[in-house]
Amino acid sequence: MPGVPPTRFIYLGPEGTFSEQALLTIPAAAKGTRTPARSVPEALEAVRSADADAALVPVENSIGGQVGVTLDELANGSPLVITREVVIPVEFVLAARGPVGLDSIRSVAAHPQAAAQCRHWLRGHVPDATVVEVLSNAAAAISVSAGEHDAAICVPVGAGRVGLTVLADKIADHPDAVTRFALVARPGPPPPPTGDDVTSLAVYISHDRVGALLAVLMEFAVRGVNLTRIESYPTGERLGRYVFFLDCSGHVAEARVGEALQGLRRICADVRFIGSYPRAQAHYGPASSAVAAADADYADSAAWLARIRAGELA
Amino acid sequence: MPGVPPTRFIYLGPEGTFSEQALLTIPAAAKGTRTPARSVPEALEAVRSADADAALVPVENSIGGQVGVTLDELANGSPLVITREVVIPVEFVLAARGPVGLDSIRSVAAHPQAAAQCRHWLRGHVPDATVVEVLSNAAAAISVSAGEHDAAICVPVGAGRVGLTVLADKIADHPDAVTRFALVARPGPPPPPTGDDVTSLAVYISHDRVGALLAVLMEFAVRGVNLTRIESYPTGERLGRYVFFLDCSGHVAEARVGEALQGLRRICADVRFIGSYPRAQAHYGPASSAVAAADADYADSAAWLARIRAGELA
Amino acid sequence: MPGVPPTRFIYLGPEGTFSEQALLTIPAAAKGTRTPARSVPEALEAVRSADADAALVPVENSIGGQVGVTLDELANGSPLVITREVVIPVEFVLAARGPVGLDSIRSVAAHPQAAAQCRHWLRGHVPDATVVEVLSNAAAAISVSAGEHDAAICVPVGAGRVGLTVLADKIADHPDAVTRFALVARPGPPPPPTGDDVTSLAVYISHDRVGALLAVLMEFAVRGVNLTRIESYPTGERLGRYVFFLDCSGHVAEARVGEALQGLRRICADVRFIGSYPRAQAHYGPASSAVAAADADYADSAAWLARIRAGELA
Amino acid sequence: MPGVPPTRFIYLGPEGTFSEQALLTIPAAAKGTRTPARSVPEALEAVRSADADAALVPVENSIGGQVGVTLDELANGSPLVITREVVIPVEFVLAARGPVGLDSIRSVAAHPQAAAQCRHWLRGHVPDATVVEVLSNAAAAISVSAGEHDAAICVPVGAGRVGLTVLADKIADHPDAVTRFALVARPGPPPPPTGDDVTSLAVYISHDRVGALLAVLMEFAVRGVNLTRIESYPTGERLGRYVFFLDCSGHVAEARVGEALQGLRRICADVRFIGSYPRAQAHYGPASSAVAAADADYADSAAWLARIRAGELA
Repeated sequence: MPGVPPTRFIYLGPEGTFSEQALLTIPAAAKGTRTPARSVPEALEAVRSADADAALVPVENSIGGQVGVTLDELANGSPLVITREVVIPVEFVLAARGPVGLDSIRSVAAHPQAAAQCRHWLRGHVPDATVVEVLSNAAAAISVSAGEHDAAICVPVGAGRVGLTVLADKIADHPDAVTRFALVARPGPPPPPTGDDVTSLAVYISHDRVGALLAVLMEFAVRGVNLTRIESYPTGERLGRYVFFLDCSGHVAEARVGEALQGLRRICADVRFIGSYPRAQAHYGPASSAVAAADADYADSAAWLARIRAGELA
Repeated sequence: MPGVPPTRFIYLGPEGTFSEQALLTIPAAAKGTRTPARSVPEALEAVRSADADAALVPVENSIGGQVGVTLDELANGSPLVITREVVIPVEFVLAARGPVGLDSIRSVAAHPQAAAQCRHWLRGHVPDATVVEVLSNAAAAISVSAGEHDAAICVPVGAGRVGLTVLADKIADHPDAVTRFALVARPGPPPPPTGDDVTSLAVYISHDRVGALLAVLMEFAVRGVNLTRIESYPTGERLGRYVFFLDCSGHVAEARVGEALQGLRRICADVRFIGSYPRAQAHYGPASSAVAAADADYADSAAWLARIRAGELA
Repeated sequence: MPGVPPTRFIYLGPEGTFSEQALLTIPAAAKGTRTPARSVPEALEAVRSADADAALVPVENSIGGQVGVTLDELANGSPLVITREVVIPVEFVLAARGPVGLDSIRSVAAHPQAAAQCRHWLRGHVPDATVVEVLSNAAAAISVSAGEHDAAICVPVGAGRVGLTVLADKIADHPDAVTRFALVARPGPPPPPTGDDVTSLAVYISHDRVGALLAVLMEFAVRGVNLTRIESYPTGERLGRYVFFLDCSGHVAEARVGEALQGLRRICADVRFIGSYPRAQAHYGPASSAVAAADADYADSAAWLARIRAGELA
Repeated sequence: MPGVPPTRFIYLGPEGTFSEQALLTIPAAAKGTRTPARSVPEALEAVRSADADAALVPVENSIGGQVGVTLDELANGSPLVITREVVIPVEFVLAARGPVGLDSIRSVAAHPQAAAQCRHWLRGHVPDATVVEVLSNAAAAISVSAGEHDAAICVPVGAGRVGLTVLADKIADHPDAVTRFALVARPGPPPPPTGDDVTSLAVYISHDRVGALLAVLMEFAVRGVNLTRIESYPTGERLGRYVFFLDCSGHVAEARVGEALQGLRRICADVRFIGSYPRAQAHYGPASSAVAAADADYADSAAWLARIRAGELA
């Protein structure tokens, strides 16, 4: 129900992963119920069927590869909207049952992609340990807790959940990597503009021609709206229908973004609005003052046009 | 005074030229007073000072070369707007005091540019006649009427005014050439949209860079507004300020044109609105149904945006 | 060594996955050695270090999520190039140790994403079976072969490898889904143009502004080069350096593509060439005749320019 | 004959006008023969028929209105090229038979447009004098020399030619106005690049759509070529064929300009090359160092492409 804050949250599980860690950064979720889902489709289905009020799912990063799944789910089926984004650092720790030395580690349980992202660290610090692949970061911690392996690559929340000791933190090879999550809900009025928002769209164009994509970009460029992300996807239909996932700066309530959306609506085969929500500032740096300037520019030009239409030229 | 039909007309004289002929095609002018001016600046000055209600001046064609003067006058000084355009064929006749044979013509009085535009015809039909240059097409007719020369190149209205006999008509080398005139008035509400209108603008950009001009054109292109004319002028200020005279399809009261104008206002150093007025259809062919379609598109996209902003996604 | 056909192939393992199936469609690989790698980075590292001649890795699809990893690896580290693409249908089968009825299936081993992609089928055909997640499609087949579970979701080659019986084929919910793989090698002369090629690039722009991306697209648009894929990635560096992965139609040996690449080189912070290679036609439909036309156009315009420069205007 | 310097010059007459004054700034013309023509078509026809080697005609300014005629002549008929531009200030003087006081002037002979350009000065300095219109600036001087009028508005060279005394100089209302002339010859190799050149083109597009014009501008923009002038002209053919006269920075021998021309050739209905020639620097300010930079950029990108095509990636 629009206006009622969500209390029942679902997230891409299992427990003890980045998704849970990200969900806990949202105050309402910290107080509400938090249910893990086995997959992104399952999480979003729970929201569509009103079994949950909101789902936290990853939208951008290589961790787990759910990005494609999430976008695909948002672009198809009954509409859902992003109401909030959470960006958290990709932070891996090496954890064991107790404070042992690294040279005593013989086996390391890890999700294959976590192992891949820490491979330089592993090579440098536990070169003789065998990496044993498991199904998730949480499963790695659990397997160590159960005594199956000497150490686990896991996320901080996952190590703590099963009482492991962190032997080394920040062991990912790319220290600045992040994962971006979206809190997804059923359609309703977007959260109010904050002055530093993101608007997400799925845009369908009829041809794979660069000219069609150029026309899409021009709709943004002429309104001074920046794109912060663009991804093309084949739609699965064989003959040349493409979908582009676009994130742009600004809120649908702003004149410049609203005008750009109307432009897309006119030239594209289809446009799906996926939400306007506050930018997660910690990651992207401080908000610029450009938005206020843009709003003033739009107000000025609207007033000027009104004078022209009324025959009141200065 | 806005809303009061003009009764006092001024036009680029002298009497008996294309300008007078064009003015007579306007019913209100046929009934009102019609005063010739010696120059375009003089005609427009009379409107600015309220000595006349409207001025008819040429805006496009080589005849007389006043184009540059007219644009310059509209772009500078206190604002004026075009309320109507008149397009008439450039039609020259060879006229004499009576119905004589072409082989008896020894001298032809002509304005230099009229002579230039009929030179192939003259070479073919009166190869032995001497062309004597005079100050205007009207002066040519008058000089023949006064017995100074055997024949005149003049416009039909000019021949009739002094009682000359037309020996040959449509003698211009380019049979489809036209002159475009503008009826210029003090600012007021534009005439209502007709579904096939033209909007004229003077647009100043700060740099001579193609990128700046490209940005201007994109403002039109993304709204589906066609440009039917573009001309750059150095502004006279030495360091790189350019003015572009643009005619586009559509009326300032239409959403697509209004939005494009607002866009120009935001990106250009200055924009001067020079009028929205009905296209002279005789010359350009029938109105397209594209305008109605464009309006419907704009209404649809505005309704769609309103639903998004209200959280009412289908 | 350039010119010497590759004989030692590595692919994203384990054995019995789509990657192996895709590799077997390449005749040279069917005859050469085929080694599975545990991750995309490991596979590409083997090529970089010359332990393998070529690596087959997924570049586009949600299966397994390696897409991001692959792009990241190609964009960084010492250069590698794609020499061939392989597109195969995402085809899942349900397999068991023998020809049992579906109603006898109590547990289904599956990689989480395979389960997600077949969930409608599972719900419709084995609604009471428990899905047990395993680490890969191959592991699912192996676990069934070992008697741990009743049935497995796996790929045809994986079922056959361990002697399972296929109970149902084409069980994926999206019957037209495909995975696109790239055969990656150390730099060398690209394969010759075929008239229907793809060129892959990683393009870095200095700002996240839509204007910069628009400029990139214009480089393609003015040469009539179509983009068939575009994806933006944050580079990991915090302050606004973006990388775009672009696939365009055409071969670097063609004039239009070469000119577009030179244009990108001039305006972008960096451009990495990732290969020109034949399009996998089975998926994309027949080659168009546009390429030949484009080549003729370029030859014509070059000849025309040469005449102008020589002062030989027609 | 290409390579042979022109010795027989023709110019828009009569003698004693701006055109003659402009022609005299060209050393070869100062030594060669100089013949006045009665019109721009006549001047250009003399070059086409090889009766003259080169013609000096106005291409940009309101003085005399010949602009349209010149462009029309260059765009049609057998090809001609501009080999040099001359820019001179629009400088009017008031001249009489002797050093009389302004208050004794009762009649002023003037070409109508010269009178228009000096009207503020006339109003301020000889408010009671009658302006008598004559056919040219030269005719004004001659009429005063013959005793028909008290004073003439004319150009300095025209006053001197008939021995008049200059009573006041720089009397034009716009002190910075200039006229731009072109020296036109039969096609031949263009003069060598100087590092600060202009290239003139006539470009035909099939539709009046802004999209077509946008495509033309993109051809320049992507190569970093600035447009310094653009003018659209209806072609006279009724149904929507437009010609654009474009001046861009740079020389056809430069890579960036050559590439842009080839691009226009591919997308336009027709392109006519009208010359590459040194910019008249006095008017436009010093040459920028951008050209050298552009050349280096093009050389760098060409070398880079060659390495890619050869498989020699760094």
